[in-house]
Amino acid sequence: MREHVIQEEIQPDGAGFLPGLAIDCVIFGFHDNQLKILLLAYRNTDLFALPGGFIREKEDVNDAAKRTLAQRTGLHDIYLEQFYTFGNFARYDPVPLQMIMAGKDLPPDDDHWLLRRFVTVGYYALVDFTKAVPNPDLLADDCSWYDLNYLPTLMLDHQTIVQKALETLRADLDRKLIGFNLLPETFTMNDLQSLYETILGEPLHRSSFQRRMLGLDILERLEKQYSGGAHKAPYLYRFKSESEG
Amino acid sequence: MREHVIQEEIQPDGAGFLPGLAIDCVIFGFHDNQLKILLLAYRNTDLFALPGGFIREKEDVNDAAKRTLAQRTGLHDIYLEQFYTFGNFARYDPVPLQMIMAGKDLPPDDDHWLLRRFVTVGYYALVDFTKAVPNPDLLADDCSWYDLNYLPTLMLDHQTIVQKALETLRADLDRKLIGFNLLPETFTMNDLQSLYETILGEPLHRSSFQRRMLGLDILERLEKQYSGGAHKAPYLYRFKSESEG
Repeated sequence: MREHVIQEEIQPDGAGFLPGLAIDCVIFGFHDNQLKILLLAYRNTDLFALPGGFIREKEDVNDAAKRTLAQRTGLHDIYLEQFYTFGNFARYDPVPLQMIMAGKDLPPDDDHWLLRRFVTVGYYALVDFTKAVPNPDLLADDCSWYDLNYLPTLMLDHQTIVQKALETLRADLDRKLIGFNLLPETFTMNDLQSLYETILGEPLHRSSFQRRMLGLDILERLEKQYSGGAHKAPYLYRFKSESEG
Repeated sequence: MREHVIQEEIQPDGAGFLPGLAIDCVIFGFHDNQLKILLLAYRNTDLFALPGGFIREKEDVNDAAKRTLAQRTGLHDIYLEQFYTFGNFARYDPVPLQMIMAGKDLPPDDDHWLLRRFVTVGYYALVDFTKAVPNPDLLADDCSWYDLNYLPTLMLDHQTIVQKALETLRADLDRKLIGFNLLPETFTMNDLQSLYETILGEPLHRSSFQRRMLGLDILERLEKQYSGGAHKAPYLYRFKSESEG
């Protein structure tokens, strides 16, 4: 069945898909001070890869990214952000694909569409990995969360793609924070600092972090709730709604 | 000669180039509180377009962007930043290309490679337009700076590409400021504020702008120079060098 599906989906001449263009998704998962990413493993090889795919002839590239992520991982409604297109000639290397195709008992064919040079459009997302449970379809052999600090060896330039996605996530965190929807409706400054420290991979100075966050003008401070030890209760915050911002 | 060059460069089957993938460059020019962009005009049509091109079979996409910008405009050594890849199916429209090809006395050929669907990788740069003088080669009919507030009608989705580039430039200005190299070695806070106001397209509040700029920790304040009326002389600043930053 598996072979049937991949053969049906991707013809040796790539019919029905845009030539030479692919998609790769870096899905970061955050929870309890852990940062992970979602990887696919390929049967009969030691190769791990980002979830990726191709663009249909009449499909928007951004839609193709959502579709392939859903197909490969079972994750739907993930807010994907396009971040960079990887187009170095050096990323062209047919050997890993030949291994994967052999592992799927696909006939070796040096002229197969999958073995040509591809430019890939990179997307990233940041989700709560306890809420986004991968459920690979027939095309994927395994799809799991891996600790970002202990990644297995990735195929092609996927390590570079992960690194660039991480740099983009770090640089854009202030602007993307609300959209990622990673915190409960109300949270403490400590919760927010833990999120930042985990994603930036370094400890932050408490008072300058708080000053910088308040300077962003996206937080609303709520009244302290009576808790018996009120002088120790931290302030709760929530994100300002669009209309207040 | 012109027809000879374009026919030599682009075969009807696109031989030598990656299929379906193009490049477009949004070159912003700044000087004396004016913001312009660089556009090409096509002979015998009313079409204006961003400088763009294609990627050779063994060429890095980023290198192709530099090469095509230099070929179309005569501008070399421009620091191009890749910002977004435009891949909507709706951008596929062969009519403008057919008009341009007819204007160049190219034989009409409905199956011509140029008339297929292209995904385009967008790049932007910001330069001093008095220092970057376009010098179109044989392929371009005209290449000039246009005021961003009075753009002519652009072909395909080039208006969308310009808008997205402008949003990216505005959002990234703090981070890219030094690299763009638009200010003299020393400058006043007013000079910097004028640059920001021109690019953001809105007036800024003087004291909060100054506070924000100083908070970026990229400026070094120099001693006031004696000027006869020292109490009115503004402070001069320069960008900190990497090692100090």
